[in-house]
Amino acid sequence: MATIKDIANRLGVSVSTVSKGLNGASDISESLRQTVLDTAVELGYTTKQMRGRNSRKVCLFVENMDYETPDQFGYDIILGFRQVAVRENFDVTVFPITPLFQSTEKYDTYMLKNGFVGGFMIGFALQDDWMSQFNTTTIPTVLFDNYISKNPCVGSVGTDSLEGIDDAIIHLMQRGHSRIALINGSRNSMISEQRRQAYIDSMTAHDLPFSEATMPYGYYVADTAKDHVGGLLSMGITAILCGNDLIASGVITECNKRGLQVPEDVSVIGFDDIPLSSKLHPPLTTIRQDRLELGKSGFHTLNSLINHISISRTLLRPQLIVRKSTAQAKA
Amino acid sequence: MATIKDIANRLGVSVSTVSKGLNGASDISESLRQTVLDTAVELGYTTKQMRGRNSRKVCLFVENMDYETPDQFGYDIILGFRQVAVRENFDVTVFPITPLFQSTEKYDTYMLKNGFVGGFMIGFALQDDWMSQFNTTTIPTVLFDNYISKNPCVGSVGTDSLEGIDDAIIHLMQRGHSRIALINGSRNSMISEQRRQAYIDSMTAHDLPFSEATMPYGYYVADTAKDHVGGLLSMGITAILCGNDLIASGVITECNKRGLQVPEDVSVIGFDDIPLSSKLHPPLTTIRQDRLELGKSGFHTLNSLINHISISRTLLRPQLIVRKSTAQAKA
Repeated sequence: MATIKDIANRLGVSVSTVSKGLNGASDISESLRQTVLDTAVELGYTTKQMRGRNSRKVCLFVENMDYETPDQFGYDIILGFRQVAVRENFDVTVFPITPLFQSTEKYDTYMLKNGFVGGFMIGFALQDDWMSQFNTTTIPTVLFDNYISKNPCVGSVGTDSLEGIDDAIIHLMQRGHSRIALINGSRNSMISEQRRQAYIDSMTAHDLPFSEATMPYGYYVADTAKDHVGGLLSMGITAILCGNDLIASGVITECNKRGLQVPEDVSVIGFDDIPLSSKLHPPLTTIRQDRLELGKSGFHTLNSLINHISISRTLLRPQLIVRKSTAQAKA
Repeated sequence: MATIKDIANRLGVSVSTVSKGLNGASDISESLRQTVLDTAVELGYTTKQMRGRNSRKVCLFVENMDYETPDQFGYDIILGFRQVAVRENFDVTVFPITPLFQSTEKYDTYMLKNGFVGGFMIGFALQDDWMSQFNTTTIPTVLFDNYISKNPCVGSVGTDSLEGIDDAIIHLMQRGHSRIALINGSRNSMISEQRRQAYIDSMTAHDLPFSEATMPYGYYVADTAKDHVGGLLSMGITAILCGNDLIASGVITECNKRGLQVPEDVSVIGFDDIPLSSKLHPPLTTIRQDRLELGKSGFHTLNSLINHISISRTLLRPQLIVRKSTAQAKA
C-alpha cells in the first residue's frame, strides 16, 4: 500500500502538497490536485474522501489480456478507467476472468449478487459465454473492442482500425512498397475481423495485390512470426503490418535470423504503441491506440449507461507513430 | 432576461431554494442544484459564478435547422450542449449561419479572430463550403450527423440510423407489412445517405421488395408528402417510413385527403420524436433520437478534442416509440 511520501516522490513535490491535493485544499491548482489524485490512484493509495460516501461499485473484467505492469497492453486502459471512476466516487474492482468461470456463472447474477452497478469488459472473444448474454443483459455494460447491437444497456469503446491501417498502408506506399502483408490478431475476435476488412478495403482502394495468404493470423503472440515470415517473404512481401507490437517484435527477430535487416530489407509496422515499441531495434513504427483515453472513455460510456444515456459506441482515432522500422523499399 | 422568480415558478420551488442552487449552497441536494442550474441555462439566466472566471468561448453554428422553440428539432440539442458547457465554465455563442457566410469567411479565421476554442456544427450539408475546410481545420470541431475522416481535431456525434430503421421495419413486418417505403430527408446529406443504406440493408436482410421508386427524398418538409404519397400507394405500398416527423405529419394529411385512414389503411412511422409526434392524429409511431443527450454528448466530445483526446465518433442508440400510427396491414 502506497504512502503519501510515495506519491510525493513520484511527483517530485512535498508531502504537504500531496496532502493538500488529497484533501481538496483550495491553495493548490486544480490541475495539480488532479495530478495528485491520478497518481494516488495509480499507486493504489486511497483516502476515505476519495472513496466517498456515495461510492458505487463497478467491476472491470479482464479476459485474455495482460495488464499487471505498465509495459503491458491492458495497464493504461485500466488505469484510465480507474482514474476517472475514482473522481466520480465509484469503487472499481478489477477481476481477471476465465472462460470456465463464464460458463459456470451467469453475468447478470454475478453482478447483482455482488452489488455491481456496471461492468467494463476487456479482452473478450466472440465465442465467450458472456458475449451472448450481453445481448440481453439489463446491467449497464461497456465492451472494449466488441459490439452488441440493439441492447440499449450495452455500449462499445475502441479505436478506429480502418483509419489506422489505411494510414499505415499509405505510409508504406509513399516509400515504394506495394507487396504488403497483415499478420493479424486472433480468429474469433471482432477487432481482428474489422482489421482484416480494413486491410482488404485499403489494399483494394489503393489497387494493391493481396490474397488469403497475405493476411494470416498471429494471435497477438511474438512467436507466431516464425510460422509466417518465411512464407510471406518467399511471396515477395516487402512490408508487414502486425496486429500488435509483440507480433512486430517477433517479425523483426525472425527477419534477423534469416539474415535480413529491418528496415533495409523489410519494413515492419506494429499496432498499439506499447512501451516496448520505442525500445526495439530498430524502434518500431506503429499505429498508436491511446489506451489511457480508451479507459477514460470506457468509464464515461459506462457512467452514461448507468444514467440511462444510451451511448452505443465511442471511437477514438489512431495515430501512426513513425520510427525506424519502415524505410524505402529496395529497388 | 429571466429572473430567479421565473426559475422558481418553473420548478415549483421557493426563490430561496433557487438562490441556494445558483450559489452552490451545501444544504440542498446535488441533484436539485443541477436541476436549478439546468433550468437557469434553459431560461437564459446566468450569474457571475455560472459564467466563471475561467470562461472559455465555444461557438455552436446552426445551418439549415429550426431550433428557436421547444417543438423544433434543434432546440433540445442546443439546450443539452449549453447545459453541460455552462457546468464546465464555457461560454456558448449560438450562431445561425448561411451558405453565403461560409463562402465569404474561412472557418479557422472566423474562430481565431473571435477567440472561439471550439465549434459544434448542426444542420450542415455535404456541399457546404465549410465541410471541405473541416478536413484540414486545426480548431477542435464536432459535427452533428456528419463525419470527417482522418482529421484528429474533428469528431462526430449522432444516432445509429441503421438500428432505428431496422427496428421500424421489423415492427411493420410483425404487423403483416411487406411493401414498405422510405420518404427520406435531403440529398447531399450524409445522414440521409446512411438512412437510405440502412433501409436497403434492412429490406434486403428481411427479403422485402424495394426499388429506387420506394425511397424518394422528402427534404424534411411536410409538404413534400404531396409529391410522393399518391405514387407510393399506387405501387401497393402499405407502410411509409419518414426521414422526420414533419414528413410523417404530411403523409398523414395526404392520406386523409385521399380518403384513407392512418393506421387502418396505411401505417406511418416518423423519425426524431419531436413534441409534435404525440399530438398528431393519430399519435405518431416514431424512431426517437434523444436530442438533449445528443447535445450533451456533442459538448463532451468537443471538450475532449479541446483537451487533445481525439474522439472520432460518439453514437447514441435510437428507440422505437410505438404509438397509434402503425397497425396490422389490411388483408
